[in-house]
Amino acid sequence: MTYCVGLLVRDGLVMLTDSRTNAGVDHVSTFRKLTVWEKAGERTIALATAGNLAVTQAVVNLLNEGVGGAEDGGKPTTIMQVKSMREAAQLAGKALRRVFAIDGEALRQAGTEFTASLLLAGQVKGGGMRLFYVYAAGNYIQSTEETPFFQIGETKYGKPILDRLVSFDTTVQDAAKLALISMDSTLRSNLSVGLPLDLLIVRRDALAVAHRVPIDEKNPYFRVVHSRWSRALRSAFERLPDVPWG
Amino acid sequence: MTYCVGLLVRDGLVMLTDSRTNAGVDHVSTFRKLTVWEKAGERTIALATAGNLAVTQAVVNLLNEGVGGAEDGGKPTTIMQVKSMREAAQLAGKALRRVFAIDGEALRQAGTEFTASLLLAGQVKGGGMRLFYVYAAGNYIQSTEETPFFQIGETKYGKPILDRLVSFDTTVQDAAKLALISMDSTLRSNLSVGLPLDLLIVRRDALAVAHRVPIDEKNPYFRVVHSRWSRALRSAFERLPDVPWG
Repeated sequence: MTYCVGLLVRDGLVMLTDSRTNAGVDHVSTFRKLTVWEKAGERTIALATAGNLAVTQAVVNLLNEGVGGAEDGGKPTTIMQVKSMREAAQLAGKALRRVFAIDGEALRQAGTEFTASLLLAGQVKGGGMRLFYVYAAGNYIQSTEETPFFQIGETKYGKPILDRLVSFDTTVQDAAKLALISMDSTLRSNLSVGLPLDLLIVRRDALAVAHRVPIDEKNPYFRVVHSRWSRALRSAFERLPDVPWG
Repeated sequence: MTYCVGLLVRDGLVMLTDSRTNAGVDHVSTFRKLTVWEKAGERTIALATAGNLAVTQAVVNLLNEGVGGAEDGGKPTTIMQVKSMREAAQLAGKALRRVFAIDGEALRQAGTEFTASLLLAGQVKGGGMRLFYVYAAGNYIQSTEETPFFQIGETKYGKPILDRLVSFDTTVQDAAKLALISMDSTLRSNLSVGLPLDLLIVRRDALAVAHRVPIDEKNPYFRVVHSRWSRALRSAFERLPDVPWG
């Protein structure tokens, strides 16, 4: 399984991914699920992936090598060439459809589902910052001020805290803190989501990565979140009045 | 959908259920999902149900009317006649298998899944208090001191708070408070779980219901939980140190 969350707030973008993949409990591996393409001052594009790892790795390869070409009457386009985030989302969708065209039938015959969800976000010079959720079918939706975050993978354990506290006016720092709390809740409740994490922070209009932080069990800040959030919840719980029945 | 949680702690039992059922978003109804059988001083048995409503209602009817009979070489046994909670769990499993034998094939032909999960808990005089999770197949597991709660239905949103704060030594009052917080998180994150709620508290060895409380949107205590838990989380969040990247 996987848990990835992307938050696009007023002053920037936060993406956080875990790195555990599993095909059964005795086939657990570590694969980074966050890919970042950057040319400072021109573009910063980040992709978080969930689903069948062979599918999502093939998508990343296609975005690097280019999708399109002869049948589109031109050269393949790579993610470093797209002129807007909307074009990037279209390219990711196209890559997914290409992988499905190549592998879909064989996967079906093998009884394996073609599963993939992508969070694609960032900014290309001249355009706004965007966060997209790209479905396995290659179509996509875009975050809004009302719905400033998307999750993929094992999403439910970490959703309540985001539902309650995230808004478009949340600062990127608070968005990063909330993403880490949301991840910590998921790690505790689902063994198939695991460290290390990849945290990305990009300021709006900076066109460069502000912070990309690998977080393992030794990371001092994540240790604080992990140990103190439980305590904070307990004391919040204790301050809530007792039930009147008893 | 449905969310039900049962907690069996040192000093008693708490069960909490919602009451929303839906077959598509335009077919939403209110059905109580908690059934209680009580003969004060002799037995208190509670059943919370999730899954196909026709299946779970049939199970309740069978538990009332009796399962078994001719093919068992005797009279049908009702839930009011079982001599222990273990026998009650077996009876519930038998009822599920009976419903499957009657309706399973027709459901399959209609493309409808035979889904049902039951939480069966309580105490019969002369035996201990027990909490069982009965699967659609009719087999079951029992809670332990290490795993003192079970959830059925839409379980994930409300699980992190229980994972962090519930132990066998939690008081029944605190267990009830935690169940309500867990339910509140689920209500916020999933529209298919809805009020009114049914809350049941049974003290160990009392062999009588301590409290059975229907909770709707006007319930003053649940209003406090609903409004203050978000605030409490926000202040817990604010007290956690900021991320060191920013």
